Amino acid sequence: MTLDEILVEIKQAEKIVILTHESPDGDAVGSSLAMKFMVEALGKKADVIIPEYPRCFCFLPTTDEIKIQSEVQNYDLAISVDCANFKRLAKNEYFENAKKTIVIDHHSSNNMFGDLNYVNPASPACCEILIGIAEYFGISISKEMGTCIMTGMITDTGGFRYMGITPDTFEYSAELLRVGVDIPEIYKKTMGTKTKANFELTKRIIDRMELLEDGKVAFTYMTTQDEKEVNAEMGDHEGLVNIGKDIEGVLVSVFIRQKEEEEAYKVSLRSEDGINVSDICLLFGGGGHARAAGALIQGNIEQVKEKLMKEIKKWTES
Amino acid sequence: MTLDEILVEIKQAEKIVILTHESPDGDAVGSSLAMKFMVEALGKKADVIIPEYPRCFCFLPTTDEIKIQSEVQNYDLAISVDCANFKRLAKNEYFENAKKTIVIDHHSSNNMFGDLNYVNPASPACCEILIGIAEYFGISISKEMGTCIMTGMITDTGGFRYMGITPDTFEYSAELLRVGVDIPEIYKKTMGTKTKANFELTKRIIDRMELLEDGKVAFTYMTTQDEKEVNAEMGDHEGLVNIGKDIEGVLVSVFIRQKEEEEAYKVSLRSEDGINVSDICLLFGGGGHARAAGALIQGNIEQVKEKLMKEIKKWTES
Repeated sequence: MTLDEILVEIKQAEKIVILTHESPDGDAVGSSLAMKFMVEALGKKADVIIPEYPRCFCFLPTTDEIKIQSEVQNYDLAISVDCANFKRLAKNEYFENAKKTIVIDHHSSNNMFGDLNYVNPASPACCEILIGIAEYFGISISKEMGTCIMTGMITDTGGFRYMGITPDTFEYSAELLRVGVDIPEIYKKTMGTKTKANFELTKRIIDRMELLEDGKVAFTYMTTQDEKEVNAEMGDHEGLVNIGKDIEGVLVSVFIRQKEEEEAYKVSLRSEDGINVSDICLLFGGGGHARAAGALIQGNIEQVKEKLMKEIKKWTES
Repeated sequence: MTLDEILVEIKQAEKIVILTHESPDGDAVGSSLAMKFMVEALGKKADVIIPEYPRCFCFLPTTDEIKIQSEVQNYDLAISVDCANFKRLAKNEYFENAKKTIVIDHHSSNNMFGDLNYVNPASPACCEILIGIAEYFGISISKEMGTCIMTGMITDTGGFRYMGITPDTFEYSAELLRVGVDIPEIYKKTMGTKTKANFELTKRIIDRMELLEDGKVAFTYMTTQDEKEVNAEMGDHEGLVNIGKDIEGVLVSVFIRQKEEEEAYKVSLRSEDGINVSDICLLFGGGGHARAAGALIQGNIEQVKEKLMKEIKKWTES
């Protein structure tokens, strides 16, 4: 089976690199570091390359070893975690140049771009797949590895709140708690803390929030001007898209964020059961999950809003 | 052991009443209904009396059977769940007049006011105690009973995020998921949904929020005027106290809410490790847990703020 082949590849390789998707979230970062711990437990070493590392994950063990780039051009083995396709993979040149490639992921849209692919869309987090793999490999989970795994499980399930959580999610969590993983601390660091900048942005996007289509759609935005004014750093907009989603009656939450100084907006959509925002984002060249997806759309706020609402209406009117 | 005696009392009683604390939260409501299901599984019937039932819990099974009061004056058995003392028990006259009384709770401040007391402060929710009792009694958990239990476990742990969660919390959750309990739905209904009124209140309290004591204390307030203007119903202020708590650097979050038309404020405090807000609230005749407590203080906003800050400073300055 694939996992046995993956084990063979890891054991054979000398130079291993671990990569994940751009704009990394908790599951991307957690999976990358957990994979590194797994490789080490197998007696090997691996580089983790994450060019844009969000500050809120700096509490994770061995964060300081993460590279922005590497001198090694041709790795024996490249492992992509939590990434659906080659294009979204950050620093994908290392993947392209590697002798052998492995893809481990939980996105249903994964297009199996590795030599070996272990993709389980039934897992709510890539980290949950990794803990399963560790068990299969007979690796005992350390507190450090468990902390990385828990980070992905907490963030990708919205703190155990999204559809897709499984009895496994909870049983693994019990297991991780037992090896000393501090779940409340991880929750606090990743989902329970608003930086002052995030708090200021929250104020603004709440003040601007519009409820459209009979309250079924919440729309709000943020500009680069806002980010400058509140001294926002990378990751300071995290979670803002959920504010609209949680309002009673809202089926789709739209949060658009200006891309640098351009007339273009990074779109984040969140939805309730029955509305596939991944399909909507695909129309604009983006993608994601059925209930959480993103895209980049050219235009000013009004133009982007109009383009999006035209597509969203098709779902909310039905 | 106490549980065996409790079982005997339930089996012997004809008229049973279940009561819980005033201003009931998810654990109070969930425990009350779960206890009723447990009594029924033992072949008995019980009245649940909750005079102020928050709308957000109306999705719970048999909500419509909950009474505001009862014609029965002298119950054979009164069971208090999730309540630390007799004074806080809503409709405590039924407890007082009952022939036999049982107290099941998880508050460390519980003063054992029943004939039989089963109190476990190590449990993060009273509902978690109840699922343990059900197991001990050999009662298999139905989806309905499980939904009530999960409601208490989710709300009292802040969605699995507070200190005090145990491997049991997660293992029971896995078990409940397996019997068909819809955890994401419960999360959404109890913690993930803001009513429009709650959203409007959020806007206001965020706009008013002050960061005091070098950012260690977040202070904000709400008046009855606010509640009127946004058409707030019971429970619409839920969760507002957590907004301040989640800001980086904040150790104590203070949220005060005017009591009806009086010059008095209901105080809610939340804290981080190391600051015991229960001790602070005790000074004002209130109480609660170390990290979540409340009290009622006479005065206008400025006066209440001053009284509170004087005590809070003693903790934040050290």
